[in-house]
Amino acid sequence: MYRTHSCGELRASHINTEVTLAGWVQKSRDKGFMIWVDLRDRYGITQLIFDEERTAADLMEKAKGLGREFVIQVKGTVIERQSKNPNIPTGDVEVLVSELTVLNEAKLPPFTIEDETDGGEDLRMKYRYLDIRRNPVKESLLFRHKVGMEVRKYLSDEGFAEVETPYLIKSTPEGARDFVVPSRMNEGQFYALPQSPQTFKQLLMVGGMDKYFQIVKCFRDEDLRADRQPEFTQIDCEMTFVEQEDILNTFEGLTRHLLKEIKGVEVDKFPRMQYDDAMRLYGNDKPDIRFGMEFGELNEVAQHKDFKVFNSAELVVGIAVPGAASYTRKEIDKLIDWVKRPQVGALGMVYVKCNEDGSFKSSVDKFYDQEDLAKWAEVTGAKAGDLICVLSGPTDKTRAQMSALRMEMAERLGLRKPDEFAPLWVVDFPLLEWDEETERYHAMHHPFTSPKPEQISLLETEPGKVKANAYDLVLNGNEIGGGSIRIHDKQIQAMMFDYLGFTPEEAKAQFGFLMDAFEYGAPPHGGIAFGFDRLVAILGGQETIRDFIAFPKNNSGRDVMIDAPAPVDNEQLKELSIKLDITE
Amino acid sequence: MYRTHSCGELRASHINTEVTLAGWVQKSRDKGFMIWVDLRDRYGITQLIFDEERTAADLMEKAKGLGREFVIQVKGTVIERQSKNPNIPTGDVEVLVSELTVLNEAKLPPFTIEDETDGGEDLRMKYRYLDIRRNPVKESLLFRHKVGMEVRKYLSDEGFAEVETPYLIKSTPEGARDFVVPSRMNEGQFYALPQSPQTFKQLLMVGGMDKYFQIVKCFRDEDLRADRQPEFTQIDCEMTFVEQEDILNTFEGLTRHLLKEIKGVEVDKFPRMQYDDAMRLYGNDKPDIRFGMEFGELNEVAQHKDFKVFNSAELVVGIAVPGAASYTRKEIDKLIDWVKRPQVGALGMVYVKCNEDGSFKSSVDKFYDQEDLAKWAEVTGAKAGDLICVLSGPTDKTRAQMSALRMEMAERLGLRKPDEFAPLWVVDFPLLEWDEETERYHAMHHPFTSPKPEQISLLETEPGKVKANAYDLVLNGNEIGGGSIRIHDKQIQAMMFDYLGFTPEEAKAQFGFLMDAFEYGAPPHGGIAFGFDRLVAILGGQETIRDFIAFPKNNSGRDVMIDAPAPVDNEQLKELSIKLDITE
Repeated sequence: MYRTHSCGELRASHINTEVTLAGWVQKSRDKGFMIWVDLRDRYGITQLIFDEERTAADLMEKAKGLGREFVIQVKGTVIERQSKNPNIPTGDVEVLVSELTVLNEAKLPPFTIEDETDGGEDLRMKYRYLDIRRNPVKESLLFRHKVGMEVRKYLSDEGFAEVETPYLIKSTPEGARDFVVPSRMNEGQFYALPQSPQTFKQLLMVGGMDKYFQIVKCFRDEDLRADRQPEFTQIDCEMTFVEQEDILNTFEGLTRHLLKEIKGVEVDKFPRMQYDDAMRLYGNDKPDIRFGMEFGELNEVAQHKDFKVFNSAELVVGIAVPGAASYTRKEIDKLIDWVKRPQVGALGMVYVKCNEDGSFKSSVDKFYDQEDLAKWAEVTGAKAGDLICVLSGPTDKTRAQMSALRMEMAERLGLRKPDEFAPLWVVDFPLLEWDEETERYHAMHHPFTSPKPEQISLLETEPGKVKANAYDLVLNGNEIGGGSIRIHDKQIQAMMFDYLGFTPEEAKAQFGFLMDAFEYGAPPHGGIAFGFDRLVAILGGQETIRDFIAFPKNNSGRDVMIDAPAPVDNEQLKELSIKLDITE
Repeated sequence: MYRTHSCGELRASHINTEVTLAGWVQKSRDKGFMIWVDLRDRYGITQLIFDEERTAADLMEKAKGLGREFVIQVKGTVIERQSKNPNIPTGDVEVLVSELTVLNEAKLPPFTIEDETDGGEDLRMKYRYLDIRRNPVKESLLFRHKVGMEVRKYLSDEGFAEVETPYLIKSTPEGARDFVVPSRMNEGQFYALPQSPQTFKQLLMVGGMDKYFQIVKCFRDEDLRADRQPEFTQIDCEMTFVEQEDILNTFEGLTRHLLKEIKGVEVDKFPRMQYDDAMRLYGNDKPDIRFGMEFGELNEVAQHKDFKVFNSAELVVGIAVPGAASYTRKEIDKLIDWVKRPQVGALGMVYVKCNEDGSFKSSVDKFYDQEDLAKWAEVTGAKAGDLICVLSGPTDKTRAQMSALRMEMAERLGLRKPDEFAPLWVVDFPLLEWDEETERYHAMHHPFTSPKPEQISLLETEPGKVKANAYDLVLNGNEIGGGSIRIHDKQIQAMMFDYLGFTPEEAKAQFGFLMDAFEYGAPPHGGIAFGFDRLVAILGGQETIRDFIAFPKNNSGRDVMIDAPAPVDNEQLKELSIKLDITE
């Protein structure tokens, strides 16, 4: 047995106990006559002490040789510390060492193993096993485990069964790009890795499993935007004999359970917002509602004067930034530069300062009088001291720009508090979205999503207006889950495939098994999937997922630690009946 | 809301309650004036009743139209059944239907959705979503969920953290064949799917995670023996600062917990057997110890006469089959034919009947007298009424043949009881095994397994004799888990790679990151992995894993339901910088 206690366990009550500890040397302080060593393991840090008076000379000598990150085992007696450290749970005691074994030496790590490290992102990724020793990463991984356990416990208690679906499935051209896997036993054929277990969970519902979930890896061969991973984890769920309301209630329950158990936060019933309202009020289908600054549409009160920029715009929209009337001219100019950055893309910004005396000062005083501006303040809900920021242009673009500005101002004002949680259901998503490039409609959620039954007839005339039984769960401005009621009727599914541009042959080749399944008694069903990586990160009060993933890949999809992907030898390719086709 | 209750929920206490149910029509009996319908969902079956006296005529008519597997919703009143059915929990009541909605019709299923189905394996696989409606498959999947939850609960309570390791990793030529995944973003390079998270879990230990587990999919591109799957699930575990004893105790605890919670079976401390003893006594490294028939080695008592077959054999070995002395000549001849089948491969079998009167009758009476045979009986532990079966030849082959015979006789005698659980640790496995084909030693477990420290010097002189700190957990004749204490010393690991025929360059290219990690303070560590599919099957009292997997593949690695793998289009291959290389 290597240890009697962990390094996080000893307290004053252990004083005079003989203990054996094992762990890593966090650091040592050598005063010559006295040496202190901080011994670290997953559970904490315990101070070891060697001193001339009580420690044998050869042991003193050995202790002097200990370097950072050496792995050691010590035996000794728990004693009271002279100067206690109230910052760590073991701070009342130290261990007077009588025996020291070096289990493994360590080279000097390429970066410091401290909460705040001097290691850059690349170095930390290459030596991820050292990065994991650091508290912030270690705690994130343990936090992830805790969230996963709570998810499973809650869903299992609610009657959901975790069913494993296959990883070696079939490639479909719809959706994102698949990773494929050549099959050796089936020459010239390929498996695909699942982008989600969507069709399998629907088949489980056809199979009568009633309530299914799975915490499962999914794969998408996409060019990686920041903070995306080619492999990611979903909490995938599906239920039978349910309407949208049942699903919202069930997963509101799950989310509330997590907030309570993990964060100790009690949240009331989650508000619900229609997709159209979210776009109108926040310019965004995943609004952060921890703070206000709702959009005020100003067309009516701003398009009656000679200001051509507004008059020619499809949308004129403003937000009232609290307390920002005090911005200097220079600060406002910088803000205007900010909205003109290519990442935001506005052509300019009109502003109105709402002075404390009730008067207004705007960048368009030439065109608008105090009465006009008072109306703008009314529409945007601006109070004395606020700054009204106004953008204009085509509706969709302008909303997106204003949404970016709103988030930026909230960030600057410290309104995005990581410890505050504001969940929100966004409902009534459009069924289809028009794709300019391919000049056809695509499924906004996926091709199995059910249109609102009462709107099916609209598909013929105004397909873009048809709403779906689709919903997203939004937390603090992040989409953490999304789902829909599925189509369970073969005819409607065939019609949807038709609208999405599949020929009947293509639909049959790719989803024939699902269409077949629908002939043998498919029940009404629906579900949801949560992005587990992001959910964990947000619950952990962070916006980036990377530290919540043990071994993440970089933006080129590489694991720089193991150096993958890598070439494989020709023999292996030959067995798989493929060869390289590299353009020089 | 589609239902107020499930189909497994209603009891006498619900009589006179108005309920809404939804489910599948299991079957209906139409007596003309009265129709009964068995309505089924995941939770059970509830009988619906329609009768002329109490049911509206149009509703009667509608009920007559219901076919098997139609999906329906009904409203009605719970009433007491005239003739109760004590075989099902809802058997006291039925529902007098007042409203019937057909949610979806169903074609006649290609096989009956009953516990005993008329569907063959192939048909059941093609329509797996219908097969899952059958109780035996549905219950197996729910059982799997339950086992998974208990595993997680136990390990989490013991301080293990579930950490997800990556699926897109790096191919290594050691071990079984990898599935590979071409990387689009890294031209000419490939990921590999993990055969196990072995190196990652070791890196997690280097990273200080201390106690890790994961229930995780693994992949092996092997020609599929019966009851093997190209993707399979492991309970993968690793611990730091442990010796073999710690690991055995921890996972004995897990197994005991599962047997108790899942099967209600209390098991004493698991026996431990050395690998050499398992081979000597059972001819097998995963002996089924639910019954005796231990091997008796007969060389000493059978090689002193003129029977050349025995005299020239490396091993003469017998087992005493209880009560089989009554076998007729014909039955024994059939048994001899059985051992001569190519799957077993014996050249013949000598037998001795132990008569009730204490005399012996053998097939080699010409060579051996009663006194000789009495000694055989003593060595094999045969009693009056037993049949001693004797095989001879080269040690390894003969042991394997005798093991097959022993299992066959146990099967015939009904000694392999699915409700009896006899776990066993097999320990002290050899470190290396000689491979005739490549004429070199291979790691018996894997190249990271630690030799017994006191035997490291033997590696120079008698490598085949070196034992490893490796162990298997055996349950009812199946290996359900295996693991080892790992090497954590860079020098010893380098030496092992050398013994296994890796050049230093190859070792560096493939495992460089692990060797590097060992330089930065690698702690002593070890672990184990359980075959989850098999564990679940055995706990479920079955020997085949297929019904415990929702969507299994066939022996050619095909999913016949979704028809995967499948060709992908050339555009997709081009993006991946590969092309087909098919030999016509």
